[in-house]
Amino acid sequence: MGEFDLIARYFKRPVRQAVLGVGDDCALLQPRPGTQMAISSDMLVSGRHFFADVDPRTLGHKSLAVNLSDLAACGARPLAFTLALSLPEVNEPWLAAFAEGLLALAETHGCELVGGDTTAGPLNICITVFGEVPVVNGRSQALLRSGAQPGDDIYVSGNLGDARLALNTLLGQIDLPPELLASCRQRLETPTPRVALGQALRGVATAAIDVSDGLLGDLGHILENSGVGACIEADTAIKLVAAYPYNKGATGQFDLKLSTEQWRSLALAGGDDYELLFTAPASQRAAVAQAGQASQTPVTRIGQIRAEPGLLLVDSQGQTLPNHYASFDHFA
Amino acid sequence: MGEFDLIARYFKRPVRQAVLGVGDDCALLQPRPGTQMAISSDMLVSGRHFFADVDPRTLGHKSLAVNLSDLAACGARPLAFTLALSLPEVNEPWLAAFAEGLLALAETHGCELVGGDTTAGPLNICITVFGEVPVVNGRSQALLRSGAQPGDDIYVSGNLGDARLALNTLLGQIDLPPELLASCRQRLETPTPRVALGQALRGVATAAIDVSDGLLGDLGHILENSGVGACIEADTAIKLVAAYPYNKGATGQFDLKLSTEQWRSLALAGGDDYELLFTAPASQRAAVAQAGQASQTPVTRIGQIRAEPGLLLVDSQGQTLPNHYASFDHFA
Repeated sequence: MGEFDLIARYFKRPVRQAVLGVGDDCALLQPRPGTQMAISSDMLVSGRHFFADVDPRTLGHKSLAVNLSDLAACGARPLAFTLALSLPEVNEPWLAAFAEGLLALAETHGCELVGGDTTAGPLNICITVFGEVPVVNGRSQALLRSGAQPGDDIYVSGNLGDARLALNTLLGQIDLPPELLASCRQRLETPTPRVALGQALRGVATAAIDVSDGLLGDLGHILENSGVGACIEADTAIKLVAAYPYNKGATGQFDLKLSTEQWRSLALAGGDDYELLFTAPASQRAAVAQAGQASQTPVTRIGQIRAEPGLLLVDSQGQTLPNHYASFDHFA
Repeated sequence: MGEFDLIARYFKRPVRQAVLGVGDDCALLQPRPGTQMAISSDMLVSGRHFFADVDPRTLGHKSLAVNLSDLAACGARPLAFTLALSLPEVNEPWLAAFAEGLLALAETHGCELVGGDTTAGPLNICITVFGEVPVVNGRSQALLRSGAQPGDDIYVSGNLGDARLALNTLLGQIDLPPELLASCRQRLETPTPRVALGQALRGVATAAIDVSDGLLGDLGHILENSGVGACIEADTAIKLVAAYPYNKGATGQFDLKLSTEQWRSLALAGGDDYELLFTAPASQRAAVAQAGQASQTPVTRIGQIRAEPGLLLVDSQGQTLPNHYASFDHFA
């Protein structure tokens, strides 16, 4: 099968919103008046972002999910995406499963595949995603990293650290009971981009980012861009690890035998969470709760923005903890 | 140097047209009213699209040039691009040169780097480019592959085959005198995207594509998408190979000793030309000439669209030639 047959068979779909989809030199989108286009691009490399033998269906899902998560962090409504794919060989069952996982998530979010590229080479998936953000009274409604204000509450959606727990297990570093591994593995392999929450937070949140490299590392980008500091309650964050009840045999079934330090590390620097980390004034607590309910996404308050620069980490007694949680960096 | 320092040092530039550039979860573009956004994505893989030891400055140029060439084929005005880069290591001199070549071409075309991704992995460059196409009286002015009509003239810009001649030389298959290799190598390594010509052809050309995989192969896409056939004058195309005067020692200096068949193959199936191949009604010959002059780009008429499907290849006497010129296919 040649390159063009491959595209036609697995990736070409009729478009409904785009003016022109796969099959010409360019795709064409017609943005609606009074909107801005939000754009993000993520590249996933075999052996680095995923195991070479990962289920291609989940890989298709995750490749788009990590991009949709960036749109979510911006408060954008997904519109379309391009897919550039470097493949070591044409493996039709693999391609069929990859396309199925990819296009199922795309369909869920009304995000159309409009173009891209296919080449031979080491397995590499590069998706660029496009979303729409309204402009109201001349002001963009996009959520940025730069709007956090001293006194703002800090929230995170969903759970933290379970994806890392799965990764550590797959790397042979931890032993998880099968049912727990299954749920953690879902978090690692098929993360849920918080697209509805991101849109519900427009006009409510002052700043937002998605948690991909680890909670504290990504919070650092908000702090740097907003010129502020923060205080984070480490033990509130710990409880967001869905596997935490397995601590010290609390479930009565299995004791993961992780130290408090290890749980903190999972929650604060796990990475691959694809949750939204955002800030909002205390006056907006009801609105934040409403955004969480409307989008059926749990949100938890985990700290506060401070005028003083730097990150203060405290335990449940308000005692300061050392912060040695490194964010993931491909070249560090 | 970490991932974020790398981006800041080599790739972060202030944006002038975009609402928001590098440094947040998403970039933001504000399309002008009455325009569509043209989008194209190309992935370049080391050892396949370029030699691993290629000059990084030319690689930066070419990575963007092949994408701008897609915008040109669509008649779009370049606006912005994202860059996703997988690097085996952080090599600062390499990155500095790559960024210099990339951003110099970007500057020439007013095309801003607005975002992207950086990761460790086998060298891979994925650029997604955004351009603007006007909509006039409700009709998109984009040039598509699908508009060719029987009787239309077929044109190609610039030169053909010289990039392939350089490639064949670098692969040790041909021997070129140094000054000829230098000029052919420029065509291979720093192609000129025909951006101004593409825009000048809006409202004039009926269909267009850029020649990346070889003239006849890319013409095939126009024929298929337009539901037409074509007749191409092979010996007119041959003369578009800038090195052709070196045939049979015509320059008095050097005889490349290529057969007519080899010259035809260079012109018709060379690939990596990044010229525009387009069609226009015979009534538009003056307008096509004017578009070429206005954009300072040579254009040559090389054939005609026919109602009968299929591609007819003829020599200078009008005799039919066999067509066995395969287009480049990564998986064929």
